[in-house]
Amino acid sequence: MTDLPDKTTAFMDWYLAVVEAANLTDKRYPVKGLNVWTAYGFRARRNLDAVLVREIEATGSEAVEFPALIPATEFAKEKEHIKGFDAEVYWVTKGGLSDLDVPLVLRPTSETAMYPVFALWIRSHRDLPLNVYQIVNSFRYETKTTRPFVRVREIHFFEEHTCQANEAHATERVRSNLGAFRKMADAFALPYLAIRRPDWDKFPGAFYTVALDSPLGGARTLQLGSIHHYRENFSRPYAIQYEAADGSQQFVHQTTFGLSERLLGAIVAVHGDAKGAVFSSAIAPYQVVVIPILGSDVGEAPLRVAEDVAARLRRHGYRAHLDAGDDRPGAKFYRWEQAGVPLRLEVGRREAEARSATSVDRLGTKGRVALDRLEGEVADRLAEFDRALRARADAAFAASFSVARSLAELAGSTRVRIVAWCGSEACGHQIESGIDGALLGTPEDALPIDPGAPGPCIGCGGTESTRWALAGQPL
Amino acid sequence: MTDLPDKTTAFMDWYLAVVEAANLTDKRYPVKGLNVWTAYGFRARRNLDAVLVREIEATGSEAVEFPALIPATEFAKEKEHIKGFDAEVYWVTKGGLSDLDVPLVLRPTSETAMYPVFALWIRSHRDLPLNVYQIVNSFRYETKTTRPFVRVREIHFFEEHTCQANEAHATERVRSNLGAFRKMADAFALPYLAIRRPDWDKFPGAFYTVALDSPLGGARTLQLGSIHHYRENFSRPYAIQYEAADGSQQFVHQTTFGLSERLLGAIVAVHGDAKGAVFSSAIAPYQVVVIPILGSDVGEAPLRVAEDVAARLRRHGYRAHLDAGDDRPGAKFYRWEQAGVPLRLEVGRREAEARSATSVDRLGTKGRVALDRLEGEVADRLAEFDRALRARADAAFAASFSVARSLAELAGSTRVRIVAWCGSEACGHQIESGIDGALLGTPEDALPIDPGAPGPCIGCGGTESTRWALAGQPL
Repeated sequence: MTDLPDKTTAFMDWYLAVVEAANLTDKRYPVKGLNVWTAYGFRARRNLDAVLVREIEATGSEAVEFPALIPATEFAKEKEHIKGFDAEVYWVTKGGLSDLDVPLVLRPTSETAMYPVFALWIRSHRDLPLNVYQIVNSFRYETKTTRPFVRVREIHFFEEHTCQANEAHATERVRSNLGAFRKMADAFALPYLAIRRPDWDKFPGAFYTVALDSPLGGARTLQLGSIHHYRENFSRPYAIQYEAADGSQQFVHQTTFGLSERLLGAIVAVHGDAKGAVFSSAIAPYQVVVIPILGSDVGEAPLRVAEDVAARLRRHGYRAHLDAGDDRPGAKFYRWEQAGVPLRLEVGRREAEARSATSVDRLGTKGRVALDRLEGEVADRLAEFDRALRARADAAFAASFSVARSLAELAGSTRVRIVAWCGSEACGHQIESGIDGALLGTPEDALPIDPGAPGPCIGCGGTESTRWALAGQPL
Repeated sequence: MTDLPDKTTAFMDWYLAVVEAANLTDKRYPVKGLNVWTAYGFRARRNLDAVLVREIEATGSEAVEFPALIPATEFAKEKEHIKGFDAEVYWVTKGGLSDLDVPLVLRPTSETAMYPVFALWIRSHRDLPLNVYQIVNSFRYETKTTRPFVRVREIHFFEEHTCQANEAHATERVRSNLGAFRKMADAFALPYLAIRRPDWDKFPGAFYTVALDSPLGGARTLQLGSIHHYRENFSRPYAIQYEAADGSQQFVHQTTFGLSERLLGAIVAVHGDAKGAVFSSAIAPYQVVVIPILGSDVGEAPLRVAEDVAARLRRHGYRAHLDAGDDRPGAKFYRWEQAGVPLRLEVGRREAEARSATSVDRLGTKGRVALDRLEGEVADRLAEFDRALRARADAAFAASFSVARSLAELAGSTRVRIVAWCGSEACGHQIESGIDGALLGTPEDALPIDPGAPGPCIGCGGTESTRWALAGQPL
């Protein structure tokens, strides 16, 4: 039992220590950046995926799965896209003992795997919209320092790909994705901003990109995912056409929506604290840990009651874990706090006699649960915990932003900065130099604080079409 | 609408046509043997996976996930294993624009990915047993003709890996796996035999292999999966040791249990018939299709009732699909029969007036469902259907075997043959020549027909330690 590094002054050390202490992943696999999902980490991922599936299917998207291997010939069809990925893909060049005629790319993302097949699936306007998604692993030959969940070489990945009849429908799909993500993030109790990236930072091949960013303290931000409008940029090279109602041949307009295990990294980074990880009840590997308080003079009653409590909760669909091991109670409390379990129920002699349990949630709120109302009371405690977790995260979120009125004010920023920007690339790069980071782009929704109307661009001083933009240091 | 090829006389043509007609997969991806899971096929796979997860977790196994990429150095550690896979793995040799220092293998199976990490996880007898599984895709550079689900290059794969304190515990785990598979197969209504493979056909590196085989008509069999006892064959090269209670260092004994999308192929092959695919209710993409019978003189009532029926069934957790499209009813019946939906509910004017639906299950049993008892009656019809499907499969299974009393009798076998075998490899190969196939091995359980006591070996005529064995033509 050692204390964790300080979250504010040593963020990355703290993050790595929390991931390790919660036993979410094992980094000791013999290739850097290829991590092992432990049983505990896999439970979090499974619960997280279930939220993504629920919300995306509620918008009419269907699960499919395309191959992980993409022939080089297909991969090369959209020039900007291949240029964007060329330096960071894994190449499969040999099958068995011989060289492959056509080398294969391990999917970094699936445009080039899916779109040749979409061209076969879509014939008529009656085939539209096509909304499909897959949850698969993607691969990047990452040369920067890898970090669990945040920057890895095999990435657990959600990608929706859609084909729409025209640009307006594609824009509507982008809005629908933003609505679905709002609900996903609610389940994770995770505040974020949807930000339209500047042109020089959009996804290779995209018409525009809306990124989903969370502040992580200081000027740090993490991109949780992104939504892209492709217009006809892919449908033309991949020949994805349909016959319109008037008999004319039209190219589809496409969108994609990508999320990854970074969400889990963000959840750890945003909610975690000096005691370790914290999970909302929707994705917690265990929602409740039940701990009998045993001792030489106590007898078996607390253990029997604790077993009964855990079994009843499981029957009612809760993810409940009984820790009846030999460690002393304090060590168990400490371990499950590190692991981020929302609710702990303790059953000692007094509780067993009173048919109750002591409840302590991960934010420290204590109470007493009557066993004859167990399931309802646990539901209430978890709902209270989720609300408190969200409130804590929202407060930190609001405190993560401040306005910078000049380039000079950007230096040494300890917040994500809100800046007036004229929209030009030159001024954008000046802002990026100023904060030693990136111009994240322009917010799609209201800013978390109200800075009034933007003044002149802090780059050039111009006032025409100036708008608020965000600048920060992406992780 | 074209008739399917004949299942008996043109089995593989029939199989390919059924997979295509049910739209389970799309083979038009630009690399042979890498197929696309369509939305419909993916639903079947998801339901199938849920059965595997439920049954393996009931035996105390936990989900994990190890990387898909295995360094060549780890891959080479168990000599027999690497020898078994050398000619059929994909090699990743380049990352970005440069060659990798250590080439990576795309997992064909995960012994060599997991076991270096198991060596870190296991320290003491208190860490045992370690029972973990993953559901991932594996890869084989397949040079034979590929077939959907049955022989593909990217394989949807279930693999359990366990570490046990000693050989007896590992043997016990093999029995536990056999019990879990019995329950899985029950959910698929799938008869099979557990067969211990002859030594020359066991998994590379295994002490012994128990395969799970289903007859597919004629002498054809399909291996659905396998369970391996490794003894210390991997724990020694990978140094997976534990401190026993007496303080001594011991190597673990390991087992694995592998299943794949072949299960889906077997389900299609075994249950399918002249009308197309047939799915048991546990894995059917849609369990019920609701079809309104409309016409110019009928009005909207049947459509409204059909919508209500589908919505009610979905609320009660059924996978129900409303087909309210423009095609005539006969075309819809045909399509959903091809797709293997267990139960069709038709709602015409008369049914709408009588608050009922006509039910037709995929095996042709007709009935009437009162809408005020809808959910209960649908449950009953699906249970009846599952029983009838199982009975049909069991009858075909029992008829798939016959005894061959001599090598000469094996020629032109139209059944899987039961033969007396002395256990020697030489006689085994004689039997394999005789049937133009494989000696599948010796059954772990009772044979589906009672052939009495085995006489002399049909290879050498010897009588010592003769036992019944099975010979067939594996797909």
